[in-house]
Amino acid sequence: MSEKIRVGIVGYGNLGRGAESAIYQQPDMELVAVFSRRGKVDTIGDDVLSLHIDEAEKYQDKIDVMIMCGGSATDLPEQVPQFAKMFNTVDSYDTHAKIPEFYEKVDGVARENGKTSVISVGWDPGLFSMNRVMQEAVLVDGSTYTFWGKGLSQGHSDAVRRVDGVKNGVQYTLPSESAMDRVRRGENPDLSTSEKHTRECYVVLEDGADAEEVEQAIKTMPNYFDEYETTVHFITEEELARDHAAMPHGGFVIHSGKTGEGTNQIVEFSLKLDSNPEFTSSVLVAYARAAYRLHKEGQIGAKTVYDIGVGYIHPSDPATLRKNYL
Amino acid sequence: MSEKIRVGIVGYGNLGRGAESAIYQQPDMELVAVFSRRGKVDTIGDDVLSLHIDEAEKYQDKIDVMIMCGGSATDLPEQVPQFAKMFNTVDSYDTHAKIPEFYEKVDGVARENGKTSVISVGWDPGLFSMNRVMQEAVLVDGSTYTFWGKGLSQGHSDAVRRVDGVKNGVQYTLPSESAMDRVRRGENPDLSTSEKHTRECYVVLEDGADAEEVEQAIKTMPNYFDEYETTVHFITEEELARDHAAMPHGGFVIHSGKTGEGTNQIVEFSLKLDSNPEFTSSVLVAYARAAYRLHKEGQIGAKTVYDIGVGYIHPSDPATLRKNYL
Repeated sequence: MSEKIRVGIVGYGNLGRGAESAIYQQPDMELVAVFSRRGKVDTIGDDVLSLHIDEAEKYQDKIDVMIMCGGSATDLPEQVPQFAKMFNTVDSYDTHAKIPEFYEKVDGVARENGKTSVISVGWDPGLFSMNRVMQEAVLVDGSTYTFWGKGLSQGHSDAVRRVDGVKNGVQYTLPSESAMDRVRRGENPDLSTSEKHTRECYVVLEDGADAEEVEQAIKTMPNYFDEYETTVHFITEEELARDHAAMPHGGFVIHSGKTGEGTNQIVEFSLKLDSNPEFTSSVLVAYARAAYRLHKEGQIGAKTVYDIGVGYIHPSDPATLRKNYL
Repeated sequence: MSEKIRVGIVGYGNLGRGAESAIYQQPDMELVAVFSRRGKVDTIGDDVLSLHIDEAEKYQDKIDVMIMCGGSATDLPEQVPQFAKMFNTVDSYDTHAKIPEFYEKVDGVARENGKTSVISVGWDPGLFSMNRVMQEAVLVDGSTYTFWGKGLSQGHSDAVRRVDGVKNGVQYTLPSESAMDRVRRGENPDLSTSEKHTRECYVVLEDGADAEEVEQAIKTMPNYFDEYETTVHFITEEELARDHAAMPHGGFVIHSGKTGEGTNQIVEFSLKLDSNPEFTSSVLVAYARAAYRLHKEGQIGAKTVYDIGVGYIHPSDPATLRKNYL
């Protein structure tokens, strides 16, 4: 048995906690420490070293890869370039429009410091992105469709909770079954985001609030709901706590293409996740292995899922993969 | 526009013909010549150079990648090591048990001659293999299930046609819907190949043959059918020609895993192909681009899908992929 990959976690919310769990499942990794702005946190493991984030720089010789588990809005744009000076890193930066800028910045810092940073890993961006590119490369004459859900949407849940008369609530995005069926039949339809998805809200009313008014306010909310087929269910606070505490998500990347003389070919990738953060962090942890191996090979700078063969994320060596999995 | 990738095709059966079609769909490739043991063949393109296979060696300076479209039984084990001396190659060698041996041989020859050979590409081995490894790397605590079909099986069709009283016929392998449902529910069942699949035969009887006897002979045939739920349909020669001339195939790679405290997570990849050879050759052609690019980077030797990031098979450059697909 070769030496284990020594990993650290930066940030300990849902993602950091998921990463800790995922590390324990990996045969070839050990968790060295968890770093948080809050200082000591309540980790899953009993004997985990839990430190203030400012202590991290002292661990440059003790940690092979740092798993960056902060949020994309403010944490990662600041922390990843900073940590890429000292560590190999992996992150789930998911602000799609700003990824090129983020890449350039991290790539520059990592190269200057001889480190490897795998950026924007997870499932979207991440495994979904990988499938979009693979599918389009193989079936050039075709269209790729991404459907999200069934999934809890944080932004839309917040929007629901801001409506007058709403005490609490959650919102799920669902893929439209009829739209998916059209794609799977090879119709190649033009579909807007709102035609591909429906929205489902579970709402707890304030005492004395008018259900009909609340429902109207939600369904007509610009940008968030007005263009979507939206259903509103009224439930009690107890039902909300009992049935809607989990963070499920998932979705579908479907490519419908034509080969030869108009032959239909359908490729589909899908996820059905009972916990979005636990899955995302499991992807992060697997790609931490890639960061470690790429760095050992001398491949420094920022990398994405597009640059990395899946063999790099699996614990087995290439010969074993060829023998047992090909 | 940069210069096009100059490709050649070796072998012109269903796969070679599919490759020719697929090359025409790619924006950055041109077909230089088709090489066949039969000499001049009837290509799809009107002005395609079609030559005897022995002419290939004269084209070493004119072809960047050779797409090897022979069969796995006898052609590829002989031709790929021979061609890897002179060309970058891509092949669909699919005799799973012999892949390690094939890899070693091709890797040795390619390295000696400074060439790059992408081996065992297609969908299984190929895209399915990639998904098996990716899924298992991410969800360590789980099981991967491969289901094939609905697909025409050449070997089983031949077996049906060898039965006394059978004039002609085809056999389809189907994934068992009930077995797939169990996997998708996260039950992690133990399933043998015969529990995962059913078989469906369409048979044209010889004049005077006894349908019941033929059906019994098929259903009880050792290895091929006796362990499977098998259905036999009797049809006319006209129906066979009309409804069963295509070569559909496909299948599912489903991984059911657990994260955290037993949270279910399901990842699924599937193909629904109206033409198996046209899809397989489309994958080959996309990976020809990877062979070309890897060779330009100085990455010589044999490679598999595990070694190659999907960015290498897409015509766009990495910055465009990050901007538009991540």
